[in-house]
Amino acid sequence: MIMATKVKVAYLGPKGTFTEQATRSYFLDNYEFIEYRDIPEVFTAISSGFVNFGVVPIENSIEGSVNIALDLLFESDFKVSGEIEQRIIQNLISEDDVDLADVKKVISHPQAIAQCRNFLKLKLPESERIEVASTAAAVKAVKGSTDMAAIGSELAAKSYKMKILYPGIEDNPNNCTRFFVLSQQEPPPTGNDKTTIIFSVKHAPGALYDALGVLASRNINLTKIESRPTRKKPWEYIFYCGFEGHKDESLIQNVLSELKNKTTLLKVLGSYPKAKMT
Amino acid sequence: MIMATKVKVAYLGPKGTFTEQATRSYFLDNYEFIEYRDIPEVFTAISSGFVNFGVVPIENSIEGSVNIALDLLFESDFKVSGEIEQRIIQNLISEDDVDLADVKKVISHPQAIAQCRNFLKLKLPESERIEVASTAAAVKAVKGSTDMAAIGSELAAKSYKMKILYPGIEDNPNNCTRFFVLSQQEPPPTGNDKTTIIFSVKHAPGALYDALGVLASRNINLTKIESRPTRKKPWEYIFYCGFEGHKDESLIQNVLSELKNKTTLLKVLGSYPKAKMT
Repeated sequence: MIMATKVKVAYLGPKGTFTEQATRSYFLDNYEFIEYRDIPEVFTAISSGFVNFGVVPIENSIEGSVNIALDLLFESDFKVSGEIEQRIIQNLISEDDVDLADVKKVISHPQAIAQCRNFLKLKLPESERIEVASTAAAVKAVKGSTDMAAIGSELAAKSYKMKILYPGIEDNPNNCTRFFVLSQQEPPPTGNDKTTIIFSVKHAPGALYDALGVLASRNINLTKIESRPTRKKPWEYIFYCGFEGHKDESLIQNVLSELKNKTTLLKVLGSYPKAKMT
Repeated sequence: MIMATKVKVAYLGPKGTFTEQATRSYFLDNYEFIEYRDIPEVFTAISSGFVNFGVVPIENSIEGSVNIALDLLFESDFKVSGEIEQRIIQNLISEDDVDLADVKKVISHPQAIAQCRNFLKLKLPESERIEVASTAAAVKAVKGSTDMAAIGSELAAKSYKMKILYPGIEDNPNNCTRFFVLSQQEPPPTGNDKTTIIFSVKHAPGALYDALGVLASRNINLTKIESRPTRKKPWEYIFYCGFEGHKDESLIQNVLSELKNKTTLLKVLGSYPKAKMT
């Protein structure tokens, strides 16, 4: 019998993060999932060829873009081959069925604590708040404790064999995170794709307008535009731009060749199937 | 003799930050400068009427926008009345003229340490790195120490009566920060002004293009465009947009009234004299 080598997928760890949850919703179980400590490490794992895919958060619907991921995409030469959209559902998690009155401390990532401010005010107004580096680390930390609860994902509760005391305690139900799946491979058109590019234009009146006109004149929907500093000259920007369509379609090929003439830099990060919210 | 009440200016503290340095370069000495612990506190000081002006960082030429400041601007009802641009010059600071060979620890804000990576690699490769909440706090911490040096501003060195061992140790000379001066007052046109607005457009092909066309068709220079999530619906954005001109000029009044018809939300944050780099 020949044992097939499993396809490797890097994700932003530790175990039980929302990125792991997104990764597992996207890939089948027979992949090998490898956690990495930070976003640059995920990028290194892909460019070194050690993993076939990498998953990193790119944007949150409340907090905005993940700048380090955007900046690394500009520098790297692999492709965006997929996107995952996930609702961020926070849960109050403890070791056993403890009574709320016994919870003296709530532990989580500062952003997760901030996202559950109303719940905490109402249900645990007297509790002490403890901040740690990730929601997964928080869930791990309450293991064995009887007076502490963590805020974290359902997967973290499962991973560490803990109980969910209250599900869905986040204040804003519109809290979603968008992840990019990165790889050296480029997926073919599916008929329902998005393309992400980076471009810059010369610093002159109408230059950005002219570039966007290439899409507008073809009635192509711009799904996202975001600016980042060039780091070369103050107050000069590059634009990250997402729109509907696949770069192998003739319509988008025309877009890209016309954009080349209206920009000072153009990089196609990739074309990939549109995410369904998970 | 009648003592005049001094005009109060809030800034992001503690003493010796780059924001204090920017604030003092903009206002005359006979103002009263009050330090605040974080950016939301500066906003509260202005909206409560306790101070006349507030100064907050809005954007760095390497790191990008300061999101919390952008989000608070959207919610508040006072005006951007000025901007300050400042080169960020980092210095190696100690209590006395210590020999580099005796410096065992380097202390600063993580971003400042990152900005001086090349210098540290070359001159202090063996030193331990200690991270604290601000460059000003770092300078304060090395007071009385003989084996520790801080990375921070010239003003911090002066404030805490310390020595600059090495000036200008940052890797990238294009490191600048832009600050907004906020107040309830609106400055009149000077002939060399900028206007900052927030707008959103309906989610349809060409909607952003049409809005930018209002500026492009008049040959008005767009100095900045940045998107932020609406926080109401995932993947819907508001745009922060800066351009040349003053809202009391007829050209810009025409722009704003035409923009009203092409946007679903329009808020003028203010018109203010363009910064000179300090």
